[in-house]
Amino acid sequence: MSDPLVIFTPSGQRGRFPVGTPILTAARQLGVDLDSVCGGRGICSKCQITPSFGDFPKHGVQVGKDALSPINEVEQRYDNIRGLKTGRRLGCQATVQGDVVIDVPPESQLHKQVVRKRVEARDITMAPAVRLYYVEVAEPDMHDPSGDLERLLAALHDQWQVQDISADLHILRALQPVLRKGNWKVTCAVHQGDGDTGARITQIWPGFHEGSIYGVAIDLGSTTIAAHLCDLQSGDVVATSGIMNPQIRFGEDLMSRVSYSMMNAGGADEMTAAVRQAMADLIGQVAAEAQINADLILDSVIVCNPVMHHLLLGIDPFELGQAPFALATSDALNLNAASLDLGLHAGARTYILPCIAGHVGADAAAVALSEAPHKSRDLMLVVDVGTNAEILLGNTDKVLACSSPTGPAFEGAQISSGQRAAPGAIERARIDPETKAPRLQVIGSDIWSDEPGFDQAIAATGITGICGSGIIEMVAEMRIAGIVDAAGLIGSPEQTGTDRCFLDGRTYSYLVWEASKDGGPKITVTNRDIREIQMAKAALYSGARLLMDKFEVDQVDRVVLAGAFGAHISPLHAMVLGMIPDVALDKVSSAGNAAGTGARIALLNRDARGEIEQVVRQIHKIETAIEPRFQEHFVNASAIPNAVEPFAILNATVTLPDLSFNTGGVGDGSGRRRRKGR
Amino acid sequence: MSDPLVIFTPSGQRGRFPVGTPILTAARQLGVDLDSVCGGRGICSKCQITPSFGDFPKHGVQVGKDALSPINEVEQRYDNIRGLKTGRRLGCQATVQGDVVIDVPPESQLHKQVVRKRVEARDITMAPAVRLYYVEVAEPDMHDPSGDLERLLAALHDQWQVQDISADLHILRALQPVLRKGNWKVTCAVHQGDGDTGARITQIWPGFHEGSIYGVAIDLGSTTIAAHLCDLQSGDVVATSGIMNPQIRFGEDLMSRVSYSMMNAGGADEMTAAVRQAMADLIGQVAAEAQINADLILDSVIVCNPVMHHLLLGIDPFELGQAPFALATSDALNLNAASLDLGLHAGARTYILPCIAGHVGADAAAVALSEAPHKSRDLMLVVDVGTNAEILLGNTDKVLACSSPTGPAFEGAQISSGQRAAPGAIERARIDPETKAPRLQVIGSDIWSDEPGFDQAIAATGITGICGSGIIEMVAEMRIAGIVDAAGLIGSPEQTGTDRCFLDGRTYSYLVWEASKDGGPKITVTNRDIREIQMAKAALYSGARLLMDKFEVDQVDRVVLAGAFGAHISPLHAMVLGMIPDVALDKVSSAGNAAGTGARIALLNRDARGEIEQVVRQIHKIETAIEPRFQEHFVNASAIPNAVEPFAILNATVTLPDLSFNTGGVGDGSGRRRRKGR
Repeated sequence: MSDPLVIFTPSGQRGRFPVGTPILTAARQLGVDLDSVCGGRGICSKCQITPSFGDFPKHGVQVGKDALSPINEVEQRYDNIRGLKTGRRLGCQATVQGDVVIDVPPESQLHKQVVRKRVEARDITMAPAVRLYYVEVAEPDMHDPSGDLERLLAALHDQWQVQDISADLHILRALQPVLRKGNWKVTCAVHQGDGDTGARITQIWPGFHEGSIYGVAIDLGSTTIAAHLCDLQSGDVVATSGIMNPQIRFGEDLMSRVSYSMMNAGGADEMTAAVRQAMADLIGQVAAEAQINADLILDSVIVCNPVMHHLLLGIDPFELGQAPFALATSDALNLNAASLDLGLHAGARTYILPCIAGHVGADAAAVALSEAPHKSRDLMLVVDVGTNAEILLGNTDKVLACSSPTGPAFEGAQISSGQRAAPGAIERARIDPETKAPRLQVIGSDIWSDEPGFDQAIAATGITGICGSGIIEMVAEMRIAGIVDAAGLIGSPEQTGTDRCFLDGRTYSYLVWEASKDGGPKITVTNRDIREIQMAKAALYSGARLLMDKFEVDQVDRVVLAGAFGAHISPLHAMVLGMIPDVALDKVSSAGNAAGTGARIALLNRDARGEIEQVVRQIHKIETAIEPRFQEHFVNASAIPNAVEPFAILNATVTLPDLSFNTGGVGDGSGRRRRKGR
Repeated sequence: MSDPLVIFTPSGQRGRFPVGTPILTAARQLGVDLDSVCGGRGICSKCQITPSFGDFPKHGVQVGKDALSPINEVEQRYDNIRGLKTGRRLGCQATVQGDVVIDVPPESQLHKQVVRKRVEARDITMAPAVRLYYVEVAEPDMHDPSGDLERLLAALHDQWQVQDISADLHILRALQPVLRKGNWKVTCAVHQGDGDTGARITQIWPGFHEGSIYGVAIDLGSTTIAAHLCDLQSGDVVATSGIMNPQIRFGEDLMSRVSYSMMNAGGADEMTAAVRQAMADLIGQVAAEAQINADLILDSVIVCNPVMHHLLLGIDPFELGQAPFALATSDALNLNAASLDLGLHAGARTYILPCIAGHVGADAAAVALSEAPHKSRDLMLVVDVGTNAEILLGNTDKVLACSSPTGPAFEGAQISSGQRAAPGAIERARIDPETKAPRLQVIGSDIWSDEPGFDQAIAATGITGICGSGIIEMVAEMRIAGIVDAAGLIGSPEQTGTDRCFLDGRTYSYLVWEASKDGGPKITVTNRDIREIQMAKAALYSGARLLMDKFEVDQVDRVVLAGAFGAHISPLHAMVLGMIPDVALDKVSSAGNAAGTGARIALLNRDARGEIEQVVRQIHKIETAIEPRFQEHFVNASAIPNAVEPFAILNATVTLPDLSFNTGGVGDGSGRRRRKGR
């Protein structure tokens, strides 16, 4: 009679094993993805499985109630102390007694899937660079002298088949007391190695380490720094926080920071120290939020634009301020976190994604990792809008990339009533086409300004200004309502039929909110504000258009808006403004902080690092600064479209009035052609 | 007609090359060991060769005067500026015109031999871990963006076939200005990688780096720290210096330092800081002596005993103070020099040789590397005498090792008139067998005390005490002169016939030097001093004897005395004292600071590191503390032999009188048997 058949679901892997074989052993021999930290000693409980009983014609087996050994003392004790879900067994304790079907639940898979919220986004497969191993180490023997470390490495090799491991000096220092405190049983965190060093023990605990270990994914932006603290075993984001980039005091935009370093001896070092301190603070903040010791953070991934990249590393960004915009290094970097003073564990590593070009940084690479245009059959346009816009266009055939100097207008800067996205800022607007009066929503509240309860909702802050997404919507609504013409001029009260338009110097402004009689602000959109937005959107559109020229296409299949801004902007209004090329509205999606997500993917999946390095090598970079067609597109794109196709998609038949306050030459008025038949 | 034949001497490599082929190119294609840093650009002059002209029947060629191209402008310029030795050519400039015989002088060989002074010692083949490469780097191109580092790495690959190189953060920081200052020509120092990291650029200079690069080999002893600063291109020792180990203030011997760390919170850290500071000071000292910037020291090798090893690394040596004497780590270590605060260049690495066992350290491994018992057909006994004695016994079959706790007596400590080896210390002594009066030599002078000019020679210091080698000779001479008996008792004036022996408490002392009437010291050898030397020599002898038992031999073929002490001790007197087993006197040699030499070998030849790691794994360690036979030998070895065979070797027929002041049981009086027929 042959040995019992063991079938694992969902993988379908199967094999015959002698009676008495532990399920964990069977799983390992078949290569089934079943987790274990303690190596089958009944300590870690990571190898939980669910046996199924009954008739399985699909698999051709009948599973009897006695197909597994009865629950043993170890399992009983675990159930008493921690509780074992009904039907669950410990894979290292339950042994094969007859044909059996074993389900490996997702949380017991070492390479479990971390599901992303957006339907179209790929799940993340857990394969972090750092793993825990519990081992029993041989005691020293005078007759056969060897170091404690060497016996620990031998145990890792014998019990886990991991080899060619070294240990940092801090581990050597801690090793002897930890081994003895754990009575020669310890848990090691092992970093699997990277482009810079081989595998190494980065942390060690006496006995079995009950807690988890963590990694932090950081999106280091010009204006804000965001950190996601992730559990490296479950993949969960356990805390997220953001902080202002303190370099703002050296210059709002990147080029002014480059200038600062050129004009001030030690300026670059000063900025380096400032941003590192802020990152360390931020890491302390997320650790506190998650109530963990920052010492448990063993891995980190950073994405950022090239100037921030250099300033973080302590490289003077001088060369990035002038053609040919040479990066000191473009490849991915593997560093000791300590070399960046991040305040992590002494053995923690830092991975920085590769830069694509002098103007297209590791943040754009992270967006590519998150949105994966290189895996898309559709032609995808990915736009990450910040102080600079990074633009990717591609599909499985090829991917092109460029950056476009949109300036800070989309972030509310250089706008007369502009402000950062913060409570009190107008973030949404609708203008009544008849009365030309605006309805507003303010950050911190979901209530529109014409709805009951609005005044109470904003009582704490009042209305303080307009943020980036607010100004986009406002200008687009002003255009739809006929307050602004295609050239970007605000009409007079006579032309627009509303007193909200008023002479403000030599041009007209539009009154959004008047609270000055209550000591509040008077919020307006000036003609100069419109110009700023026109310049910014023209830069963005021209970059996208340039890539389309290079791709030799006239339209794209999908548009993904990324960046903190991409999360809030209304695709409809973006298209009204002509920020992005025409595409069906349902083909425009927002990816949120895709750069941050890319960082998180690289943190949780080590293979993704190799993937993005490979992709970046293949991305074709376009330098807008030396492309004559970029200038050409830019000139043509400064106008605000005089007709908006998305309305057709929404089954609306609105056509914008062409008020033509100024019919002087502004290109074709859109930089786009109407296309029929969509 | 076939291409001209090019024959290289001394290697004998030969091949045919088209007319016009540069000699360097021919050498590279044949794998001839011809150095070049600039890669054939006529800058570095490392590829100098000497063509031979005339008839070479041995090689079957006739070489005409026009076998090479005429001296060109580059060679002429070099000759004008720096001078080219007569007959020399630059291998990269001289091209093949006809059959030619080319001699590669030793200094033009990349893997040149560094000759060691001792005839029996193997030469060192230059193969340092760090090499210089001069490269021309492509300039950045906006159309094909890549980082400056990536283009530098591509140049190293294309021009030198070195690959898989990374760069430390400090190189990234320096890179952009250096590349531009050198007009895209730079010299890189590349560390070829080690057990911890892959190959990496550790230093970079604009243009061609004219100077050399350096490494430092450090022998970190319990009492003294010695450093050799070596040129990593020529292999020359350019400076040597020593410094006291400041840990002495925490305890003279190792165990008292271990105790200090046990008794004082933070004691280990305090000792770590002290020794690191001393090493940094010493490195500054040798750099100053060689008049180089310490920044040019790019590699370092350290050897030391296990306690110093742990204290240097910041590991509490607690476990080394008690059985089973477990090392935190026994394998070789590859570290950033910065992690030890050695004050070297930011990219410098440190290699620490493996430890053999808890009592047999990296210093013993270095002695094994220097003296190579594993390569000897003769059975070699290698004794490194310091505060502990490390003993190696072996041949090509196997090597055994142990350490023996000799204590500090051999270093002049715990001796009533003892002192460290320093000017003013008695280092040599002869006692007239008739008058029983001593003749002395003092450190700092070669003149014996009974020769003219002695008083002037020692005027600066006077005679201040007796150092380690002095006390050995003194006690041995006292035994030969019949002042001391086999049991180690000093005789009375009546027994010895000299007033130099005087009652000193309950035993007799021997007066060596009396200067108290001039305010100088009264130097004596007390019976207690004899006891200290007896204990020390018994420990040493017993260790050697134990290894011989384990090897199952009764005699050895050769004895090598190593250690600072080994350099000064007289083999004859060592044998009189019974420190080492009997062997023909011409088979005893002194290896000087063999540990320091081993460190220098590992510094200059990277392959030697792998070799010693392999050897250490195969060395069989004997722990004296748990070997009953060690105690047995020790008891038997405390006496001072009553007959000294070396005299026979010297064709002398002296037999020592057996005064037998005390005939009580002291074993067989020697721990050795006379052997006949030698």
